[in-house]
Amino acid sequence: MSTPSIEDVRKRFIAPPGKPFDLSSRDSGDRDLFPDKKHARKSLKSDAGAIDELQDLLYATREKALLIVLQGMDTSGKSGVIRNVFAQTSPLGMKVKAFKAPTRIELGHDYLWRVHEATPRKGFVGIFDRSQYEDVLVVKVRNFAPADQVEQRYEQINQFEKHLTENGTKILKFMLHVGYEEQGIRLKERITEPHKRWKFNPADLDDRKIWPEFMKAYETMVERCSTDWAPWYVIPSDSRTRRNAAIARIIRGAMEDLKLQWPDPGYKLEDFDFG
Amino acid sequence: MSTPSIEDVRKRFIAPPGKPFDLSSRDSGDRDLFPDKKHARKSLKSDAGAIDELQDLLYATREKALLIVLQGMDTSGKSGVIRNVFAQTSPLGMKVKAFKAPTRIELGHDYLWRVHEATPRKGFVGIFDRSQYEDVLVVKVRNFAPADQVEQRYEQINQFEKHLTENGTKILKFMLHVGYEEQGIRLKERITEPHKRWKFNPADLDDRKIWPEFMKAYETMVERCSTDWAPWYVIPSDSRTRRNAAIARIIRGAMEDLKLQWPDPGYKLEDFDFG
Repeated sequence: MSTPSIEDVRKRFIAPPGKPFDLSSRDSGDRDLFPDKKHARKSLKSDAGAIDELQDLLYATREKALLIVLQGMDTSGKSGVIRNVFAQTSPLGMKVKAFKAPTRIELGHDYLWRVHEATPRKGFVGIFDRSQYEDVLVVKVRNFAPADQVEQRYEQINQFEKHLTENGTKILKFMLHVGYEEQGIRLKERITEPHKRWKFNPADLDDRKIWPEFMKAYETMVERCSTDWAPWYVIPSDSRTRRNAAIARIIRGAMEDLKLQWPDPGYKLEDFDFG
Repeated sequence: MSTPSIEDVRKRFIAPPGKPFDLSSRDSGDRDLFPDKKHARKSLKSDAGAIDELQDLLYATREKALLIVLQGMDTSGKSGVIRNVFAQTSPLGMKVKAFKAPTRIELGHDYLWRVHEATPRKGFVGIFDRSQYEDVLVVKVRNFAPADQVEQRYEQINQFEKHLTENGTKILKFMLHVGYEEQGIRLKERITEPHKRWKFNPADLDDRKIWPEFMKAYETMVERCSTDWAPWYVIPSDSRTRRNAAIARIIRGAMEDLKLQWPDPGYKLEDFDFG
């Protein structure tokens, strides 16, 4: 049994830009690429090590930024991905932003204002735990903004991401696709396990009650915002280990594709006086 | 051979508040607490694991913030501490700020303005890679501000830290004490090792040339700003592993002393409808 190639992982989970997207055709329990859990864990560990080194290189060169967008229903594992994929990476080169309900000040601005502010600068890996996509997900489902405004946002977000890309930020977007049944199990765990209890919010159940509306909004989001410059990857997330392993493969691949080289200012020992 | 107790590490490296401080009495090569390097590495690994769990608890409770201040000459290992002590901690709960020369906007404000902005919020571990203390170190040595203004800053910083402490932030300050000879070796490494070359800045040698002036400024800083609420720890840093191990012990101890408890909102499974 061998680790699936980065190309295989991309191909299987990408939502091809410009094509219709049917979420029901994606199995949140898909294990085909990583049938063996132990093997997935090994692959993750190896990729996390590589990502650490690639991040050092990103930091040293300061030519590019990497922005990772994580979206998914409650319990789909956004924090788990952050913890596990970047388990070996120094926090010095990372910028994590968890988006919550906007503050009054943020609501005074357009919805991308706070998002733009939170983007990583060159040399850094930025992670969005939730993101601009909340403005076409919960905002749409709960009617927090007029429908015609929400409708405009897909293209606005695409153009915003194009702008970032053209200015040196590589964007990777992951939808953590967890099944309804698996979410039920995990929400219950949050009540029964003492160390998870603080994570449980009775309001999470309100979103669960309108699951189909959320899935419809996710489907539209993926279809309308999977672009050539920033495609969506829809990651089966019923298995935490396989989810992490798949995402790590794709992140590693994107970082390798930057083809960064260690800067060499050409200094020589004899040029300097060390006292 | 056993790991030194947290209390032993604190006692050995603290600069006792309100007492004269003589930097020359501190050996940057001190190995007494960790004579065996392998043992230091084991201690570090175990503490990094504990710190990870304690950070989860800090995040869950959102009652306290932890601010870690790292100061030291070039190559003393500020980034190394961040990488190694927080090797196992999720970046989600961390906020690292590397202070560089102030921007024009920052210079328009008092020197603590940008520092205050960068402090961690409750639930977070903040790390300052350099800090407000640059304003009594390089600023003093290079005369970037009038001497009488610099003189006022020690007490201003003490009061600022008292304010933070009284409002829920635990502050830990580490001076990474590297010797002149060891710095020379490390600066040369930065030129000869391809992956370190980007870190070398010929200007670092300018600071090295006035080493005694810097040491004097560090000494004054430690003496005047080691307070009951935020004492300085002066960590022998000629050995990277022992430096990391000592700092990890002290951070772990401070986090344990917070005596945080997992929040229990008292939810019961039967109170909710999971659909």
